[in-house]
Amino acid sequence: LGEFARIDQIFAPLSAGAPGAFGLTDDAALLPDAGPGQGWVVTNDAVVAGVHFVPDDPPDLVARKALRCNLSDLAAMGAAPYGYTVALAMPREVAGDGAAATDWVRAFARGLAEDQAAFGVHLLGGDSVSTPGPLWISITAFGRVDSAQALRRSGARPGDELWVTGTIGDGALGLLARNGRILRDDVTEPLVQRYLLPEPRTRLGPALVGIATAALDVSDGLVADAGHIAHRSSVRIEIDAPAMPLSAGAIACVDSAPDLLHHVLTGGDDYELLFTAPLDRRETIEALAAETATRISRIGRVTDGRSGVTVLDRHGEAIDSLGSGGWSHA
Amino acid sequence: LGEFARIDQIFAPLSAGAPGAFGLTDDAALLPDAGPGQGWVVTNDAVVAGVHFVPDDPPDLVARKALRCNLSDLAAMGAAPYGYTVALAMPREVAGDGAAATDWVRAFARGLAEDQAAFGVHLLGGDSVSTPGPLWISITAFGRVDSAQALRRSGARPGDELWVTGTIGDGALGLLARNGRILRDDVTEPLVQRYLLPEPRTRLGPALVGIATAALDVSDGLVADAGHIAHRSSVRIEIDAPAMPLSAGAIACVDSAPDLLHHVLTGGDDYELLFTAPLDRRETIEALAAETATRISRIGRVTDGRSGVTVLDRHGEAIDSLGSGGWSHA
Repeated sequence: LGEFARIDQIFAPLSAGAPGAFGLTDDAALLPDAGPGQGWVVTNDAVVAGVHFVPDDPPDLVARKALRCNLSDLAAMGAAPYGYTVALAMPREVAGDGAAATDWVRAFARGLAEDQAAFGVHLLGGDSVSTPGPLWISITAFGRVDSAQALRRSGARPGDELWVTGTIGDGALGLLARNGRILRDDVTEPLVQRYLLPEPRTRLGPALVGIATAALDVSDGLVADAGHIAHRSSVRIEIDAPAMPLSAGAIACVDSAPDLLHHVLTGGDDYELLFTAPLDRRETIEALAAETATRISRIGRVTDGRSGVTVLDRHGEAIDSLGSGGWSHA
Repeated sequence: LGEFARIDQIFAPLSAGAPGAFGLTDDAALLPDAGPGQGWVVTNDAVVAGVHFVPDDPPDLVARKALRCNLSDLAAMGAAPYGYTVALAMPREVAGDGAAATDWVRAFARGLAEDQAAFGVHLLGGDSVSTPGPLWISITAFGRVDSAQALRRSGARPGDELWVTGTIGDGALGLLARNGRILRDDVTEPLVQRYLLPEPRTRLGPALVGIATAALDVSDGLVADAGHIAHRSSVRIEIDAPAMPLSAGAIACVDSAPDLLHHVLTGGDDYELLFTAPLDRRETIEALAAETATRISRIGRVTDGRSGVTVLDRHGEAIDSLGSGGWSHA
């Protein structure tokens, strides 16, 4: 497929739901009016074959994860997703005219189509280029939020509670299992799936606008990301290790190798929302979580301080370090 | 420099003029209200070392060209530029902690800063990743336009005149000179500079909203891009070869090797605006060009037909082909 056929036949149909994409016929796209009091949130995340995914990963999963990481960033700001642009750099085996190349691009687009339907987003435009190096994807995503109340990393106050969605550590353990560093196929298959396909919290994120005092999505690792909130909010954060929500697979892994727990807390790749909120919003938050079918857990609190994170054990004692990762971030 | 230092010290200062960039501290950025009747235009262009530029090109010029190609797409839609996000994939020699790597990134950011000042745009966010392959850059740019009147490729009508800004062919000839295929250093230096640093028409583009009936920026080559307007507008376009605006360097090149003329007309990389407008807007257009200090030329007309471009010689005869490129696009 040449460039024009690729756009017309494979990518243009993905823009059908966005009138301002003009069917990908023009130089750029037009975002619709965001609506009264609403503004556009913009985020950009890129991935490279051999760094962020394995070159022969299924193209539909590669596409969906790249998109979902961006949707997770929108959710972290409280924005409801609308659309995205995608730059795709194709090595010869994908850029070519052959059947294998066309199959790759079609599968990539099929993955995008699947998640467009799942998350209500549309392709707005982008670019495709050839590269002598590994395949890469850069996605820029757009969502709407109340302009005055976008969720930020700053805003956490002493006395707030710390919440997290879903379960933590599955992505990091899934990656270890995939790389042959955890040999428990009986329990790691769902963890690998979580690594390949995170679940962006696109419904709960927007619902937390006006309720959460600070938020982000967990990508660097729970402790490091809690540290980002602490730093930007000029507070200290305490995390209760026993309150950490773990999946059945993660529990089985940690039970058989306790030093894996530091991967759970510091491994990253969770794409869950970590947020703070005042005590008196607890019931509201639980109701919103139920409405959006999102598992949530209270895992700690905001305390006086200027920055830093302390992880507490079951006795409420600070854990200085666990394994090589270390839990206590200054 | 680590990731956080790179963001804090080098990139965050580039976001200072955009409050919604939050100093690059958060997961995403917030575009301001576009204003009454205004909407956001979004475009995305990516470049790869070894494909779109030479790996040891000066980093500031690489940054500026990558940004300018995006600004040119905004101008083609009539949008006034506001800001951009940049994804940068760094090979080891640029991602590392060493002085050479830091110098590269600083020079890259210095180029962005220079063009931010020149075009009134701000960095809104982005991503930086490492890559085992060549360096690449993906920029997404944002501009404002009257939502109901964004310039499109469709809209040209029989009887309209065809206009182009600046001079045509300098970029293509500059690239040939750079690759040692034109040995006229006495005249090609300015052409190479034009290739390295195009001039996006960010002032004239927005001024043409409500005046031009169709527009795009010349990137595939003048004839091919005229063909895009013809195709999307369901018209035919005639181009008068003798009316083509050429720079002194281009004239010298073509005089010494007439077969270079097809590179002028089909070579691309011009980033000039090609647009159509009714006859009765001629004086207005000339006044706007003077106001914005933009050279413009009338180079043809829109005729009845369903698509296609004809290039006419000085006798008004259709040129069937010139050199290997061929001028007559069906």
